[in-house]
Amino acid sequence: MLDIKKIENGTVVSPKGFSAAGVHAGLRYEKKDIGVIMSEVPANCAAVYTLNTFQAAPLYVTKDSISQEQKLQAVVVNSACANACTGEQGLEDAYEMRATSAEQFHVPAHYVAVASTGVIGELLNMKKINAGIKQLQPVNTQKGAEAFQTAILTTDTVMKTACYEVVVDGKTVTIGGAAKGSGMIHPNMATMLGFVTTDANIESAVLQDALRSITNKSFNQITVDGDTSTNDMVLVLANGKAENETLTVNHSDWKAFYEALRLVCEDLAKQIARDGEGATKLIEVNVEGAATNEEANIIAKQIVGSSLVKTAMYGADANWGRIICAVGYSGVKINPNDITVALGDIVMLKNSQPQAFDEEAAKNYLQQEHVAVNVSLNEGTAKGKAWGCDLTYDYVKINASYRT
Amino acid sequence: MLDIKKIENGTVVSPKGFSAAGVHAGLRYEKKDIGVIMSEVPANCAAVYTLNTFQAAPLYVTKDSISQEQKLQAVVVNSACANACTGEQGLEDAYEMRATSAEQFHVPAHYVAVASTGVIGELLNMKKINAGIKQLQPVNTQKGAEAFQTAILTTDTVMKTACYEVVVDGKTVTIGGAAKGSGMIHPNMATMLGFVTTDANIESAVLQDALRSITNKSFNQITVDGDTSTNDMVLVLANGKAENETLTVNHSDWKAFYEALRLVCEDLAKQIARDGEGATKLIEVNVEGAATNEEANIIAKQIVGSSLVKTAMYGADANWGRIICAVGYSGVKINPNDITVALGDIVMLKNSQPQAFDEEAAKNYLQQEHVAVNVSLNEGTAKGKAWGCDLTYDYVKINASYRT
Repeated sequence: MLDIKKIENGTVVSPKGFSAAGVHAGLRYEKKDIGVIMSEVPANCAAVYTLNTFQAAPLYVTKDSISQEQKLQAVVVNSACANACTGEQGLEDAYEMRATSAEQFHVPAHYVAVASTGVIGELLNMKKINAGIKQLQPVNTQKGAEAFQTAILTTDTVMKTACYEVVVDGKTVTIGGAAKGSGMIHPNMATMLGFVTTDANIESAVLQDALRSITNKSFNQITVDGDTSTNDMVLVLANGKAENETLTVNHSDWKAFYEALRLVCEDLAKQIARDGEGATKLIEVNVEGAATNEEANIIAKQIVGSSLVKTAMYGADANWGRIICAVGYSGVKINPNDITVALGDIVMLKNSQPQAFDEEAAKNYLQQEHVAVNVSLNEGTAKGKAWGCDLTYDYVKINASYRT
Repeated sequence: MLDIKKIENGTVVSPKGFSAAGVHAGLRYEKKDIGVIMSEVPANCAAVYTLNTFQAAPLYVTKDSISQEQKLQAVVVNSACANACTGEQGLEDAYEMRATSAEQFHVPAHYVAVASTGVIGELLNMKKINAGIKQLQPVNTQKGAEAFQTAILTTDTVMKTACYEVVVDGKTVTIGGAAKGSGMIHPNMATMLGFVTTDANIESAVLQDALRSITNKSFNQITVDGDTSTNDMVLVLANGKAENETLTVNHSDWKAFYEALRLVCEDLAKQIARDGEGATKLIEVNVEGAATNEEANIIAKQIVGSSLVKTAMYGADANWGRIICAVGYSGVKINPNDITVALGDIVMLKNSQPQAFDEEAAKNYLQQEHVAVNVSLNEGTAKGKAWGCDLTYDYVKINASYRT
């Protein structure tokens, strides 16, 4: 049993040596729209980015920063404008955003990461961005963390935050995370904006390997609308303030640390899925009995991404044929004559034979805020999970008029 | 210039020697729900089927029929119930449907194809099916054709039909088609139900090659919701009544015949896309300047399948960033710095630089019933097209309560 503790109300400033802030720079009408996470000392870091061919300008700048020493001390993020598909000017603006931040926070430019989220194809208002950065005063309080968490949101309706503690060498290591994401969510080898802080002592290369592996099981297994964004990025900053012996895969507490980091990422990923644009519920798909974990994950994500499954869930309609249909077009080879499908505990198809079930009970179950779709194959012992949300009138409403 | 004539109001009974019928068998509340297309003589045939792992029972039976002599004389289709994921009983029912039809139309069982469309996972009501088949009296009239075209519809709001004439050896060859499809539309190497009749004289193997090639450019390039059905099938029947010299790829009129068959299929495919569940408009995506036609088709289909593009089109919002985003996650390698995007003639991005454009004019253009998204790459000279529809409140409404 791993000794991992969930910290209720924990944030990105819960790990030692981190502070945060967020202010209203006027990029949006009223809400906070620019924020920062700071570490007292340069932190080792790891990052994953979108695989979309059109990577936004801030991603280039952040990669450039990290490439120098694999260390970061400040992460500055704006919402309202994605600074994506903005050509040379967009790249210059992202570098200017980094330079202003370096000056404001008294750190070298290559210790600064920048991120943007919002409308694609519009230029940043640099006057407002620069003025906003100069107002940022990071503090190590719940209020500072919440200001940051609010500043990065777009169509999100709630803040996303998660925090876990784990003991390494008898020292308490804390991992905190914040994320945003509601639409254009179908991460591929990376995710929407996610920021994880920890006071663990760990080398960047080891952290990078862990992040990559965890991302494939967490952020990459959620979908809201099948659209992979141009701006997806997850950053992890580890500043070593917990003073544990350097973590490696051979460390006796490695499993506990890895699992705590995984829990932070999975927790944030599920919060993004639940807060999908227009969503009324979180859908979790569990696939077991697959030949490989990878195949189980592909099937799970195909089911949770099906528009027909998503609308049926919205209507609390136990239309299991749509689940089977999605399994069938997933591209994974399976035996179509030996599959079991259940919604929660209610079995609808057993060994590919339709089962009589209580429609009323199924409807009641599907009206819950958390719904589990359980699929069992008979190919092997591998498992996978994916998370998403229902497709509702409000998704259409939000996206038929996003720019206006 | 190929001599091909579009026949307005042409149907599946326009080619010589075909008749059709459709009746209400009580599978649905009021609408016609079972129909037949007949050829006076056994017709050579070609077929493509869904690649969904869970192929419905009628597909097995139709494949079995065709495997015997590559000839068909009757095609019997019911709506309301897909007879998919129905196990052994479903297969027995499909064979019984074929046997009843063979008796009713006085043809050998293996000259009968059967098809079903509707809810997955429910058994056919065989009493009603058998009684319905016995009422079918195919006739060579517009009324007979329309009865068939109506009987095969589910959530469709209009009949889909197309007819072209072409001259082969101085003989007039006619090709007529009917199709259904509105939801669960994302055909993969096959399509929703499509039935094409022709009086051309052509061998089954040659027809099969032509159908496969044409399907990839027509039915496989449409999408409504990204869900590939369990029941997709396109059948072509060629009964030779036009008495042309047998068509082969070396025939001097091959190109004209192939093109006419392609036009029938493209025409039906576009009608399915336009009548997508809840749709208010047809979206056509043209991609040019690609390295290969296949890559152009992949990009076109990715754009037209994006939920964010589809909702923007519904809202008449010229949000071209979403188009670029879909190009970027299509998986096709392109130079992100040299792409041009236009809605109709209105250029929004030129060589990857955002262009000023008249928002009002763009809004007006997007309020049309047919909208073209034009994307130009700078990789080569290959082209591709795809068709789809907008994503609306009504799509959610229809699918949140399909079974009830």
